[in-house]
Amino acid sequence: SMDRQCAVASLTAFQFQIDRQCSQTRGRACSFHTPHGIVETPRFMPVGTLATVKTVTPAQLRDTGAQMVLSNTYHLHLQPGEEIVAKAGGLHRFMNWSGPMLTDSGGFQVFSLSELRKIEERGVTFRSPRDGAVIEFTPERSIRIQNALGADVIMAFDECPPYPAERKDVEAAVARTYRWLERCINAHERPQDQALFGIVQGGVYLDLRQQAARDLVQLDLPGYAIGGVSVGEPSEEIHRIVEATAPLLPAHKPRYLMGVGTYREMVQAIAAGIDLFDCVIPTRLARHGAALVKGDRWNLKNAQFREDFQPLDEDCNCYCCQNFSRAYLNHLIRSREILGYTLLSIHNITELVRFTTRIREAILSDRFVEEFGHWLQPSAVPVSP
Amino acid sequence: SMDRQCAVASLTAFQFQIDRQCSQTRGRACSFHTPHGIVETPRFMPVGTLATVKTVTPAQLRDTGAQMVLSNTYHLHLQPGEEIVAKAGGLHRFMNWSGPMLTDSGGFQVFSLSELRKIEERGVTFRSPRDGAVIEFTPERSIRIQNALGADVIMAFDECPPYPAERKDVEAAVARTYRWLERCINAHERPQDQALFGIVQGGVYLDLRQQAARDLVQLDLPGYAIGGVSVGEPSEEIHRIVEATAPLLPAHKPRYLMGVGTYREMVQAIAAGIDLFDCVIPTRLARHGAALVKGDRWNLKNAQFREDFQPLDEDCNCYCCQNFSRAYLNHLIRSREILGYTLLSIHNITELVRFTTRIREAILSDRFVEEFGHWLQPSAVPVSP
Ligand SMILES: [Zn+2]
Ligand SMILES: [Zn+2]
Repeated sequence: SMDRQCAVASLTAFQFQIDRQCSQTRGRACSFHTPHGIVETPRFMPVGTLATVKTVTPAQLRDTGAQMVLSNTYHLHLQPGEEIVAKAGGLHRFMNWSGPMLTDSGGFQVFSLSELRKIEERGVTFRSPRDGAVIEFTPERSIRIQNALGADVIMAFDECPPYPAERKDVEAAVARTYRWLERCINAHERPQDQALFGIVQGGVYLDLRQQAARDLVQLDLPGYAIGGVSVGEPSEEIHRIVEATAPLLPAHKPRYLMGVGTYREMVQAIAAGIDLFDCVIPTRLARHGAALVKGDRWNLKNAQFREDFQPLDEDCNCYCCQNFSRAYLNHLIRSREILGYTLLSIHNITELVRFTTRIREAILSDRFVEEFGHWLQPSAVPVSP
Repeated sequence: SMDRQCAVASLTAFQFQIDRQCSQTRGRACSFHTPHGIVETPRFMPVGTLATVKTVTPAQLRDTGAQMVLSNTYHLHLQPGEEIVAKAGGLHRFMNWSGPMLTDSGGFQVFSLSELRKIEERGVTFRSPRDGAVIEFTPERSIRIQNALGADVIMAFDECPPYPAERKDVEAAVARTYRWLERCINAHERPQDQALFGIVQGGVYLDLRQQAARDLVQLDLPGYAIGGVSVGEPSEEIHRIVEATAPLLPAHKPRYLMGVGTYREMVQAIAAGIDLFDCVIPTRLARHGAALVKGDRWNLKNAQFREDFQPLDEDCNCYCCQNFSRAYLNHLIRSREILGYTLLSIHNITELVRFTTRIREAILSDRFVEEFGHWLQPSAVPVSP
């Protein structure tokens, strides 16, 4: 039957193999096959909200080592609209990224960025920040948009409760997220070349998280995400949530921790069995003149860099570090020259991708705890966005 | 003697040869040798005001075919200051441009951008737009700064009268420019590896222009520029000035028309014997979402491009045209995404450099008038900046 053919095609297109399991933690190195190439995990994924990772070209992005790139359904629906992307031949061709891509569902943005109108069982209505028009996002519409965009991985339309939130509200959001997920699965028209991931919600309530995970696993989706984290809660809450939830997700499917891209939180999540991460942090920091260097954050605008003619990171092979000095970056940032943001974005993405690929290499030689164990102590410092 | 050694070194470092003379116009194809490589003329030079051509990397700039790149003494003195550039090893190393470079003297900016304090025989005092501090630029100081920056070509500090200006004021500016030039020559400490160009002023008064040119030629400088054009006058005035002035400048030295980079004005100036051009137009247009395509200007924000999936210019080999559609550019510009400005800057610079290199090729095969003669009719339309 057609259904069975699709299921087989999907199995082939999205093959997921565990290359090595860490002997001391739940950490693992895996290979996730997609129609646009393999994602070797653990791996950080940069965010290209509006079909562009801000200030960098796809050629520069490829050189960072990034494999899978994100884009945002909410933003692309508002501009240019999914019809235009579809007419262009899909998101890959539209933005000229030939590697794997993932789109989120728009759920997070509808709840966090919009002037909300109404949340109902049917969906969410909100005002377009562009022209004030009332727009409705439903599970079906989110999937229809994502089918038109054509990313390799698409995400379920979920209700993302704020932090903090009362237990009864989170419980209702989890239940609704499950019902919406069933509608997403029914609406999905391209399972053969787009893998639909379910999202575990549940806020900081671990039993809600665990029940949600168990319920979602029953649906046998090609991958699972932990959502609703990095919304303002302390870092150790993320750690608790991931530790409690990740082990319940199937070992032979990719696990994606949404919106997390800080060093410590990634190491801890990897130790709990997470494979994929995304965060706007490398480009957002760059726009503020900040660089991620060997685990630290530096503000390149600081006077200490004015006459510092060393490369940003002498051990980094990125275009920024191979060709320019800290003094030049200081000058560009002080001058508000866009090249400064471009160079820092290139470096910051390279840094976070490299951080996760080094963890992958460590796991492949079973030296993860030896090399990254010092990150595994929880931090009391809140995660800054 | 040392002086003689320097003169010989300078002669070698800045060798200038006429590769072919057009048989029907004064147009010529030349090779201008500098310590950082050859500039094949006629050629458009992009402007990197603050030691960066806005929104593009040096690697992207190299791919446009640009050979000599400009930078601005006035801006670099204010930020980061010439001492820092000198400590970095000079402008080439600071901004990682290994090709030929040219710095202007700051004269034009002092007169056009600053809150002027006083113009005296000694120099000009103005308020820094950064912190309000009173700064003095003299011919000696401009040259000292340019010696510290270390570009291959440096420009004399001149008095650039506004347009329109009365004859007696222009006459005084021409006379002062000549006295200041003598002081620039005396102050110049690196004639062996930095070629000092004199600047012909004289506004729209052709006899003043011609007398200034004759006076400057007596000083036997390694190159000459026509300045004080493209300051608001009609296009035909530029044509009249260049026609009257360029033939008086030595044939065996480079001739540079400052601040001009529009198609028709370049062709007309090349026909009068000009070799070099600079203009901020390709990056400025890009920041406004406009592209130069086959002699026209297109506003990529226009609705007509929303679903136009062709490349910007199908005959262009630039990174923008080879990889992206007009629809994607329209999306980026509408989204105010910086990648849009980067891609349009890359294309626009490529377009103007290519326009001048095609003219060079036409001159080399003595087909200049045949191929570019339709541009030689003067236009009554004012040159927009
Ligand atoms: Zn780097
Ligand atoms: Zn092009």
